[in-house]
Amino acid sequence: MSEPQNIYDNPEFFAGYAHLRQTATGLNDVLEQPALWSLLPQSLDGLRVLDLGCGFGDFARKARRNGARSVLAVDISAKMLAAAKKQTQDPAIEYRQLGIEHLDLDGGSFDIVVSSLAFHYVEDYPAAVARVADLLAPGGRLAFSVEHPICTAMAAQQWVRDSDGHALYWPIDDYRLEGARKTKWFVDGVVKYHRTVESYVNGLLASGLTLRCLKEPEPVAGGASAVIPGLDLHRRRPPFLLLAADR
Amino acid sequence: MSEPQNIYDNPEFFAGYAHLRQTATGLNDVLEQPALWSLLPQSLDGLRVLDLGCGFGDFARKARRNGARSVLAVDISAKMLAAAKKQTQDPAIEYRQLGIEHLDLDGGSFDIVVSSLAFHYVEDYPAAVARVADLLAPGGRLAFSVEHPICTAMAAQQWVRDSDGHALYWPIDDYRLEGARKTKWFVDGVVKYHRTVESYVNGLLASGLTLRCLKEPEPVAGGASAVIPGLDLHRRRPPFLLLAADR
Repeated sequence: MSEPQNIYDNPEFFAGYAHLRQTATGLNDVLEQPALWSLLPQSLDGLRVLDLGCGFGDFARKARRNGARSVLAVDISAKMLAAAKKQTQDPAIEYRQLGIEHLDLDGGSFDIVVSSLAFHYVEDYPAAVARVADLLAPGGRLAFSVEHPICTAMAAQQWVRDSDGHALYWPIDDYRLEGARKTKWFVDGVVKYHRTVESYVNGLLASGLTLRCLKEPEPVAGGASAVIPGLDLHRRRPPFLLLAADR
Repeated sequence: MSEPQNIYDNPEFFAGYAHLRQTATGLNDVLEQPALWSLLPQSLDGLRVLDLGCGFGDFARKARRNGARSVLAVDISAKMLAAAKKQTQDPAIEYRQLGIEHLDLDGGSFDIVVSSLAFHYVEDYPAAVARVADLLAPGGRLAFSVEHPICTAMAAQQWVRDSDGHALYWPIDDYRLEGARKTKWFVDGVVKYHRTVESYVNGLLASGLTLRCLKEPEPVAGGASAVIPGLDLHRRRPPFLLLAADR
């Protein structure tokens, strides 16, 4: 297996991504994060949380505000972790540089494992999920989001548009051809791994987890759609796939 | 709710469909049926089977050859049932004219409930699944196939092709807009109901069933692809979604 990609430490990528997150009107904020939180218990009181691919630590800090006893927030990017630490004054949040591929943590030591838009960067999903299942305490929950396989099937990830620029439809091809897709996102050559819905779901079941929910969230009419241009497009094909499963 | 559609008793539709099935080189035979059988126990010895939307009774007869104690095979189409009965000499197979929407059967009386490409004709899927869950004996299994939501999202159900007729990609639109799609299949105005993967999966979970497997089967390279023109296209987008869940 190749070394895990660490695109977030690329200076040009990091600058673009940091700007996107700081403006905070992106799809993650209005669609993906609410859907991810809906897969967790309403209160995290006393729970031990592991956040895989924690980025700037937004989730970790919110988890603590929602009662989590502790949060271990890991990311492969040193820059992301440095930025996260700067925004955090909380001894119950620990940031650690660690790839999802190398989780040398104690088995059964987390009640909640969460991952936001990180698993599609992981080459060996079945291995990662098996490791996560082992990290969960009995009754613990894994909840995660990925870019939807409908979106990752083709590397270009673009609407087909008419000559006036209106979106006609979203194209799909090579759906069953799982593996790397090189895309441009701030910089060229960002590698994502396309997988089928079948692989995402059956990987959980193969690790002995019980599926609790599958979500393909859509923008709520009259909600943020009014202020975020183009948000309605995400009703026409699902941008995210979210799964929740219990040990 | 409107009356269930009974397109299979339309003479023109029936003639076209009967011809398709009799030639037996369709996608159902090489892809959908093997995938559906893979979701069932290897032996059906002594099990009571319910087949929802049984068509010509192929599954019912094969289930008996695989040891099923009894098969109740229901369909809404009188013509289909008449044809099925003609091909069947087996007192342990009972054919009954019954829509999936009106399953007035005894709760807990089946070990296996199977349905091949019928649920996408059912308007109220959550109600149908709840009823099926009640029909299953504890430990019993529901396994079914539907046209994949990627395929049913747009009513046209056609590849976008270049001027030479080569398939460029499969178009998606209106994915989150669940409901009726009028398509042409032998005759105009065949109504299918598009649903998201989320609805298909969460409907099972909401009925108290435990998901065992999700499949998006693809043609096997070098298999039937060699003899069925165009079969390779079904690797480029999934034609079927199959789900197995246990009570």
